Amino acid sequence: MNSWGDRFRLTIWGESHGAQVGVSIDGVPAGIELSEADFSADLDRRRAGTLGTTPRKESDTPHIVSGIYNGFTTGAPLTIVFHNENTRSADYRNLTSHPRPSHADWVAGKKFSGYNDPRGGGHFSGRITLGMVTAGVVAKKILGDFVRFSTDITEIGGCNDKSQWTTIIEQTQQAQDSIGGIVECRVTGIEAGLGEPFFDSVESLAAHLLFSVPAVKGVEFGAGFAAARMKGSEHNDAIINDEGKTLSNHAGGIVGGITNGNEIVARIAIKPTASIAKAQQTFNFENGKIEELSIKGRHDVCITLRAAVVAEAALAIALADLKLRA
Amino acid sequence: MNSWGDRFRLTIWGESHGAQVGVSIDGVPAGIELSEADFSADLDRRRAGTLGTTPRKESDTPHIVSGIYNGFTTGAPLTIVFHNENTRSADYRNLTSHPRPSHADWVAGKKFSGYNDPRGGGHFSGRITLGMVTAGVVAKKILGDFVRFSTDITEIGGCNDKSQWTTIIEQTQQAQDSIGGIVECRVTGIEAGLGEPFFDSVESLAAHLLFSVPAVKGVEFGAGFAAARMKGSEHNDAIINDEGKTLSNHAGGIVGGITNGNEIVARIAIKPTASIAKAQQTFNFENGKIEELSIKGRHDVCITLRAAVVAEAALAIALADLKLRA
Amino acid sequence: MNSWGDRFRLTIWGESHGAQVGVSIDGVPAGIELSEADFSADLDRRRAGTLGTTPRKESDTPHIVSGIYNGFTTGAPLTIVFHNENTRSADYRNLTSHPRPSHADWVAGKKFSGYNDPRGGGHFSGRITLGMVTAGVVAKKILGDFVRFSTDITEIGGCNDKSQWTTIIEQTQQAQDSIGGIVECRVTGIEAGLGEPFFDSVESLAAHLLFSVPAVKGVEFGAGFAAARMKGSEHNDAIINDEGKTLSNHAGGIVGGITNGNEIVARIAIKPTASIAKAQQTFNFENGKIEELSIKGRHDVCITLRAAVVAEAALAIALADLKLRA
Amino acid sequence: MNSWGDRFRLTIWGESHGAQVGVSIDGVPAGIELSEADFSADLDRRRAGTLGTTPRKESDTPHIVSGIYNGFTTGAPLTIVFHNENTRSADYRNLTSHPRPSHADWVAGKKFSGYNDPRGGGHFSGRITLGMVTAGVVAKKILGDFVRFSTDITEIGGCNDKSQWTTIIEQTQQAQDSIGGIVECRVTGIEAGLGEPFFDSVESLAAHLLFSVPAVKGVEFGAGFAAARMKGSEHNDAIINDEGKTLSNHAGGIVGGITNGNEIVARIAIKPTASIAKAQQTFNFENGKIEELSIKGRHDVCITLRAAVVAEAALAIALADLKLRA
Repeated sequence: MNSWGDRFRLTIWGESHGAQVGVSIDGVPAGIELSEADFSADLDRRRAGTLGTTPRKESDTPHIVSGIYNGFTTGAPLTIVFHNENTRSADYRNLTSHPRPSHADWVAGKKFSGYNDPRGGGHFSGRITLGMVTAGVVAKKILGDFVRFSTDITEIGGCNDKSQWTTIIEQTQQAQDSIGGIVECRVTGIEAGLGEPFFDSVESLAAHLLFSVPAVKGVEFGAGFAAARMKGSEHNDAIINDEGKTLSNHAGGIVGGITNGNEIVARIAIKPTASIAKAQQTFNFENGKIEELSIKGRHDVCITLRAAVVAEAALAIALADLKLRA
Repeated sequence: MNSWGDRFRLTIWGESHGAQVGVSIDGVPAGIELSEADFSADLDRRRAGTLGTTPRKESDTPHIVSGIYNGFTTGAPLTIVFHNENTRSADYRNLTSHPRPSHADWVAGKKFSGYNDPRGGGHFSGRITLGMVTAGVVAKKILGDFVRFSTDITEIGGCNDKSQWTTIIEQTQQAQDSIGGIVECRVTGIEAGLGEPFFDSVESLAAHLLFSVPAVKGVEFGAGFAAARMKGSEHNDAIINDEGKTLSNHAGGIVGGITNGNEIVARIAIKPTASIAKAQQTFNFENGKIEELSIKGRHDVCITLRAAVVAEAALAIALADLKLRA
Repeated sequence: MNSWGDRFRLTIWGESHGAQVGVSIDGVPAGIELSEADFSADLDRRRAGTLGTTPRKESDTPHIVSGIYNGFTTGAPLTIVFHNENTRSADYRNLTSHPRPSHADWVAGKKFSGYNDPRGGGHFSGRITLGMVTAGVVAKKILGDFVRFSTDITEIGGCNDKSQWTTIIEQTQQAQDSIGGIVECRVTGIEAGLGEPFFDSVESLAAHLLFSVPAVKGVEFGAGFAAARMKGSEHNDAIINDEGKTLSNHAGGIVGGITNGNEIVARIAIKPTASIAKAQQTFNFENGKIEELSIKGRHDVCITLRAAVVAEAALAIALADLKLRA
Repeated sequence: MNSWGDRFRLTIWGESHGAQVGVSIDGVPAGIELSEADFSADLDRRRAGTLGTTPRKESDTPHIVSGIYNGFTTGAPLTIVFHNENTRSADYRNLTSHPRPSHADWVAGKKFSGYNDPRGGGHFSGRITLGMVTAGVVAKKILGDFVRFSTDITEIGGCNDKSQWTTIIEQTQQAQDSIGGIVECRVTGIEAGLGEPFFDSVESLAAHLLFSVPAVKGVEFGAGFAAARMKGSEHNDAIINDEGKTLSNHAGGIVGGITNGNEIVARIAIKPTASIAKAQQTFNFENGKIEELSIKGRHDVCITLRAAVVAEAALAIALADLKLRA
């Protein structure tokens, strides 16, 4: 479904080439100062226009259409919409008969009996994440100033030396290809005790949201997959004071599904963009033959660059939802 | 919260050393043949008793107390309980003052103001996963015989050569330590089109459940973290027939959050058991000093051995829930 | 919260004098033919402008902003918005200090610490029911043509002789007063078997929605309160054929919370509009004295006239939600 | 579904003649003193044994099987079960072929394709309300001592003179018939501001629960249906102090769906028990003829007597759920 959350509940809608994309957030406490300008910094981090991102540029101007009065949230649903502007639907004309490999084209048609909007991926477009970034900004306000988010891209195309990324991206672009990457989010200042047994562990909620972001294929917390290769005596984090501070932080700030007050650490694997200009093979559902497909349209060489802030927003939303339950 | 699911909704309860642990499943269609014997095979896979698992042996006998009539499900809630038997609560006496590193002891006390049941981890115990395994059996019945699950442990302590595992576990046991591992679940026979945009992608639901299993610290689908190191032209799975079969399967059977009919592949990282007999340091909340802790009680050297079937159950539950929505 | 529903899930937002009111509906099956014109008939029934309704006239033009492609629903969220036009916010200036009797003014301020939007009742305005009427139209499409709704006002001001209502309303208007009424909804063609034990009985879901409509103070099904005055031998409805048809219909088409295929009958009590021009007493929160209040603004003499279609929509939504579960 | 609630979430299971009925409550705050004895008073009010109630007597002994440690709630799910004892399943043998008029027999068989447990009404039995009464006790503890419930039967068989009820019930019993009644619940001490716009009004939540109680056919708050016959100037409740106290209380303590701090008043219409010994007509689904049915088994002449505490529990649960959200 297109709603998520318990105390901080977001509902999203829209299509890549439809009239608008939007988000309505229920459960925002009354009295939070908020204006459209507050969204700028995070929307900028998601915006295309730099090396490695799509040439489709959108102004991405947020319009708050409900839930605000005199500059403060009212406690009623907070709704923010973005009008779509720069669409070129003709580019997507043949994707129904020639579904793009590793894209939602074919499964969407299957699931919705061909009634889905295929233009720009329709409701499966990464453009829908605008709502999540917007909600992330509100979530961070709820968490408060003491909670700080620090999000980095740690790898692009398997390379963790940032000085080489420009070259890697340029070469990938010239090859009409795309490339994946890894995002790491760190959060300090979170109180101990957030998270619920059993199903609503911090990891469960955060992973639920993170895996709803298109292109995410792996999520780990703290030592993550490396923890599977450790001994208990190496992995265990010794508590060293009465606020629960630990000497190491292999748990990534979460034990038993509950925050322990240490830094939260999450890493997210982003696959390479499915849409590439380079010729690929796909099945032609009209003539039943395997044929070559060259994808038109404007796409991101390295969507990781824009996905980082989306991942951060997902984590912020999960934490805000849990904080409002506490 | 302690409920999960939309069409296939499970509610769990119980404590490690309380009277019982149980699960009630709402949404089970009427007319499924089911008896207590159907749970045996999966409960056996979760049972302790072999090398690397805890010496605490429980009969783990399931009692169906509602939702069955004349050997078939009725459509009313299906409830199964397990009585706790082999408990030694004295072993846990000092864990409130000396919380175990990387265990829920301290956060549980913090969250519940000291009212939590500390015996054997209370409601945070891995024993609570009995309900998930039980629900997994019912979920597989709903998915039908054509859907096959194949679950393997692929690594223990970073080693993927199964012939060495006995030695590794024995050495770890002698060192009074514990060790992590990786579980891989594969599912064939799943129809294309399961999963919901946006928040209820297959990966989102499966990860939500998997991260609620104690000790899980990482989850990936298909190529997972390796996908982040690939080019689009390498990663993309070419469709080769009109049933959506793909040449490669880097997507792990899920694109755009929706099943594409190919094999579903998930890998789960299990951290080493937090409870080890080997001496560790922890904070003594009574005198404010860092002290040595030797954990008494009976614990698993390699919980991965028993967690494999729990992970499989989590995946089955997520898929059954989505199938019942379709 | 501002979302409701399981399979047919509506989320609403907006304020009486804000930019817009809107509704997003999740779970609408793909492939339903739908255009903005389909909403006209029911929106007209809710529209002001005739005797007994507010002089505030709104065009109430629906704009479908997501979930439609080529004239059919896509399976993605269906979002419809209405721009607010004819607002006179100055009329509401002193309601924070002088809350209207029996209106939400004071409780809203209390609940939201004074941050609520007070203009025209803000989010507590009956204007928010536009979304419910809109969703009701879609719900009826899901239920199909065979299901017929027939909604009547059976009483106004305690009088069940329709020929006298014009006079009653005119007299009430001249007295600067308001008046209540009773709405009866009847639904034929509903299949037997809708409704869920235990908590999601047809009556439970319908009443949940009906009591969310402002001004509703009573709901009954079938014989309702009269059933409490009957003997079992009078009240029981004898089954007379193998389709479950009953000789009488005191149950109003619902037994054990489940539809039995007979006509569904619900009656809804609507209180008189709280806002009246006639002088009333209220508490002045600025000086602590009880003072006279003459409410400015434009209000409905008999909101029952416009609430009838809202009640019908509520019933349709509950039934559509249950049908999509079946 | 068989779960209800947001912050105070109850899940119920069981059948009239199965092994047990039970309830698991999620969201109970840690640290509430609770023992099995606390349930006695309310269970006694629901117990059969006096004039007008069924001769089936059950000890109804509650067993707390999870969520309690050292006499206090732990914050983990609180589960209470009741073993069924005094069952006579033979009495229900022919109800599948000869469904009882106005009972769930036929719709249950229809809905669950004949797999439902027909013994004693199975999961549709009033026995399932044991869980609701139990949860009501916990809900009242959460609301605190300052909140007082006062529940009365105001009518039996249309008669509001209590001195005549014994005679009425005896005559009905002799006639092998049954009789309905009206329950009124009053709650004082509730703070202003509970309830949520739009869908989670106090009335919506309370009515949702009340209409899930078997035999309830009407619910009204404050003046209720009488409000529909009043003028605004009569109905409106003037605020007379800065705590929101009103001169009259036609609103029944709820305006705009939110508590206003005045006494909450709800009235519930209970239909006569469907099961009567007196001969009735029903359809014989085996031979396709309308035949006479004399219902065996032990039934309540006036279920209103036992339903009063169930209605009170429903109201307490709705209020506790809202209080935990505040």
